[in-house]
Amino acid sequence: MSDPKNDDPLNFSRRVPEGDNRQRLVCDDCGFIQYENPRIVVGVVASWEGQILLCRRAIAPRKGYWTLPAGYLELGETTEQGAVREAWEEARAELAIDQLLAVYSIARISQVQMIYRAWLRSPRVQPGPESLEVALFPPDRIPVDDIAFPSVHWALKDYQETLAQAVISPRTAPFQQG
Amino acid sequence: MSDPKNDDPLNFSRRVPEGDNRQRLVCDDCGFIQYENPRIVVGVVASWEGQILLCRRAIAPRKGYWTLPAGYLELGETTEQGAVREAWEEARAELAIDQLLAVYSIARISQVQMIYRAWLRSPRVQPGPESLEVALFPPDRIPVDDIAFPSVHWALKDYQETLAQAVISPRTAPFQQG
Repeated sequence: MSDPKNDDPLNFSRRVPEGDNRQRLVCDDCGFIQYENPRIVVGVVASWEGQILLCRRAIAPRKGYWTLPAGYLELGETTEQGAVREAWEEARAELAIDQLLAVYSIARISQVQMIYRAWLRSPRVQPGPESLEVALFPPDRIPVDDIAFPSVHWALKDYQETLAQAVISPRTAPFQQG
Repeated sequence: MSDPKNDDPLNFSRRVPEGDNRQRLVCDDCGFIQYENPRIVVGVVASWEGQILLCRRAIAPRKGYWTLPAGYLELGETTEQGAVREAWEEARAELAIDQLLAVYSIARISQVQMIYRAWLRSPRVQPGPESLEVALFPPDRIPVDDIAFPSVHWALKDYQETLAQAVISPRTAPFQQG
């Protein structure tokens, strides 16, 4: 059953397990099914007195460009815990999570980004190992030409548009159907 | 590097890859890193003239008990598409997604459940292969003693409590800190 054309690791081949309706990675030796599912990225638009926290990336991809604190949700975390952890790891920032600002499903790369609105507990931030520098930007001084990813633009726009809203129905990606 | 005490498949061992800060499953032969991340379950509270769609499970776990249409998000889907697909697969229901009702992070099992409020496009529903039967229940006739999972109780409660709200800030699990 193995397929020499693909580069799946080890003795896995792609086939439809009994009772399923789509192809999975199945071990030809032991029958183990390696399910692959979309991954969750958690992040924050965190502010202090109207200024927004951004991090300049020290790692690929998009090294040197500015991004929001964000990263993959890890096993055993809630989405809020993951967002708080990423802000600490990347910017040594301490946060209070407010509410969910956006859920960006990026189906092409099987990623679901969950971005929270958050308040910084203090303006003391400093770069973690994955950041070259971190800074608080007034909305009109955000380095818009040096933003790392499209979803950072979306989140900053959605943040500004919902700034006066006490209750947010999470925004979706611009191209995403409801 | 292999650990005879664990039952990880094949030649993987658990160690911290260079530049990472937590243990991952790494292939001892080729260095392939098998990242494990929480999985997303997408589901719906779907209604027709105030009645709510439930499905009686034809499969383990909790076979014979009632649940909301829900299941794992698949690669290449948006969360809304996944919720619509699950409602079709389990209840042959056609939906219009309204908005995100709840995000239940269940860290113990590394699951994030995203439950949407939705409208049925018609009351014609019928069991798919994973359901013994499907039905529309008025709120006061929901089979509360035969519900499959705690999160189904949460979602039904959150749905009722937000019924009059045009804009919902997604609810979280009862034990979950903001």
